[in-house]
Amino acid sequence: MDKNLNEYPHRRYNALTGEWVLVSPHRSKRPWQGQVEKHSAEVRPQYDPGCYLCPGNSRSGGEQNPDYKDVYVFINDFSALLKDSPDFDVVEDDIFKAESEKGICRVICFSPDHSLTIPQMKVEDIRKVVDLWIEEYHTLGSDPEINYVQIFENKGEIMGCSNPHPHGQIWASQKLPVEPSKKQHYQLEYFQKHGDTLLSDYLQKELQKDERIIFENNHFAAIVPFWATWPYEAMIIPKRAMARITDMTDDEKTALADTYKRLTMIYDKVFDVSFPYSAGIHQAPTDGKEHNEWHWHMAFYPPLLRSATVKKFMVGYEMLATPQRDITPESAAQILKNLN
Amino acid sequence: MDKNLNEYPHRRYNALTGEWVLVSPHRSKRPWQGQVEKHSAEVRPQYDPGCYLCPGNSRSGGEQNPDYKDVYVFINDFSALLKDSPDFDVVEDDIFKAESEKGICRVICFSPDHSLTIPQMKVEDIRKVVDLWIEEYHTLGSDPEINYVQIFENKGEIMGCSNPHPHGQIWASQKLPVEPSKKQHYQLEYFQKHGDTLLSDYLQKELQKDERIIFENNHFAAIVPFWATWPYEAMIIPKRAMARITDMTDDEKTALADTYKRLTMIYDKVFDVSFPYSAGIHQAPTDGKEHNEWHWHMAFYPPLLRSATVKKFMVGYEMLATPQRDITPESAAQILKNLN
Ligand SMILES: O=P(O)(O)O[C@H]1O[C@H](CO)[C@@H](O)[C@H](O)[C@H]1O
Ligand SMILES: O=P(O)(O)O[C@H]1O[C@H](CO)[C@@H](O)[C@H](O)[C@H]1O
Repeated sequence: MDKNLNEYPHRRYNALTGEWVLVSPHRSKRPWQGQVEKHSAEVRPQYDPGCYLCPGNSRSGGEQNPDYKDVYVFINDFSALLKDSPDFDVVEDDIFKAESEKGICRVICFSPDHSLTIPQMKVEDIRKVVDLWIEEYHTLGSDPEINYVQIFENKGEIMGCSNPHPHGQIWASQKLPVEPSKKQHYQLEYFQKHGDTLLSDYLQKELQKDERIIFENNHFAAIVPFWATWPYEAMIIPKRAMARITDMTDDEKTALADTYKRLTMIYDKVFDVSFPYSAGIHQAPTDGKEHNEWHWHMAFYPPLLRSATVKKFMVGYEMLATPQRDITPESAAQILKNLN
Repeated sequence: MDKNLNEYPHRRYNALTGEWVLVSPHRSKRPWQGQVEKHSAEVRPQYDPGCYLCPGNSRSGGEQNPDYKDVYVFINDFSALLKDSPDFDVVEDDIFKAESEKGICRVICFSPDHSLTIPQMKVEDIRKVVDLWIEEYHTLGSDPEINYVQIFENKGEIMGCSNPHPHGQIWASQKLPVEPSKKQHYQLEYFQKHGDTLLSDYLQKELQKDERIIFENNHFAAIVPFWATWPYEAMIIPKRAMARITDMTDDEKTALADTYKRLTMIYDKVFDVSFPYSAGIHQAPTDGKEHNEWHWHMAFYPPLLRSATVKKFMVGYEMLATPQRDITPESAAQILKNLN
């Protein structure tokens, strides 16, 4: 690696989004007098009568959860998107532009066991989550009014997660959201120029360099991307170019469950705490087109920076100018690799 | 206003950045079991011997602050950008792209009085902050290696502010940062097509509609923009098209100080708490060009949503897909206007 990148302030380009991140390698140990988070090392019961996601309990909407045994999916009681709202467009003078957005918000319970998190679950049980993602992507995406299916997980109070029961969400929408539309643009441009997916070429080079790989198996690599913004940001990239998770073989599905578990187990060791993050899958739109340019992947954005209680704040300069990071992606990768 | 925008989920276009925000007007009252913030109603002394920004105290770098009487500016002891780092470029295969970034990070103490915040300061004292911003923008921007000067303020622990002493920051850089470069692109496109700045035309229409104006005076309007992302996001827009703050008349400078005070006073009334936010000025690059397309403005991004302790989390869907908001910009503007 160019050793300037290890020493001096620089910007790195995110080839997937066309945006930049500011890296300040020299600034690793400034003092912290700011906000520290509560560290809840609480042990949770396997069943919590007050949890609206536990089997058999009632939800805020009044409905009762079935006595589910593995995964369970239902429509979010407070959906940000609705399926049967009217179509409309507001356009005024090149400035005021709005359009209706329809969609479906679903919640997925990963397990009936209130006490678990992904890194604590068995691979065969995480595999059921993967299978459900695939089914949901397929079913939701088959609706002609649904053109994108965003699968994600918010983990930890610090990430605004309002319930510790292991769960994720799916928001399926008519319009292509902002982040995937950037990735679509840059992947398409690359594919048209090179005939390969951007992430195939990227991954091949990363495997050669071996500076940012956390670990790999037959089907996936877990990597701190060259353009990582969050301190311990990571990506799970399939080795085979696939536009969508429905393209996975049986082996790949199990390998994904295993990779997801292993990466999150490593995360939990960084500060010896259940590691908070937002994670999600970026993949081809469900607009009926082929999208050979897309190479699906799973992104992890964890906020912790220095300890279980001190996070990186994306504020001020980050909101108004450019995201900034202190430790380099390479040193973050090294730390994560050593914890494997 | 199109009444659909008040009732159904929709996306709004940000004419300054080319991005979208998802608005879910129907979802105003979902329950909250998630993280609540500490509410520090602490009364601060006018002088704190442990504060590294108070007059006469020593800073972490070892330097001692002078016994300053109004504003005071110095180089950040933990600058993310450095002025004398080498120039370099890393470019590899359309994927790996990095470049050196030089710059200067400065801290501005708004007042020697540790206990104050902007809304509690006198207009004549805030005017000194405005004057210093103008001077700094001019001086920093005159350096041929500095092409953009980002002035900002992080207020409140919840915004990662590590010291409650009233202060702001300036990060001046060689490269045009990500957010201003989006705004430059869309303002230029608009200016070339219409011959007016985007924000002149926008402001004129907002003043006619009077749905999102919080207040106005002779020189400025404070407004919740049509495309606001944060619950109580606001912009201060000068009525006269000016590319940069150095273009202000004496009256305008005082009016800016007054507008800044008034808006933040309103903010403090929303939840009866010292309202946290990141705020900053977007204006023309200091690259020696004219930039008639630029109309400078000051943006406020406050995170609180429902109370002094419950904020909007920009996580999960927001990080991976599209920023989402519940209360409409119009109802936020109404609330703020009524508190004026
Ligand atoms: O330098 P400060 O104020 O301690 O740091 C704060 O503001 C910076 C600029 O917005 C951010 O990069 C940091 O994450 C934040 O904690
Ligand atoms: O629906 P939840 O999980 O309560 O809400 C959480 O995730 C949503 C989707 O990422 C965000 O919009 C909310 O701000 C966050 O609090």
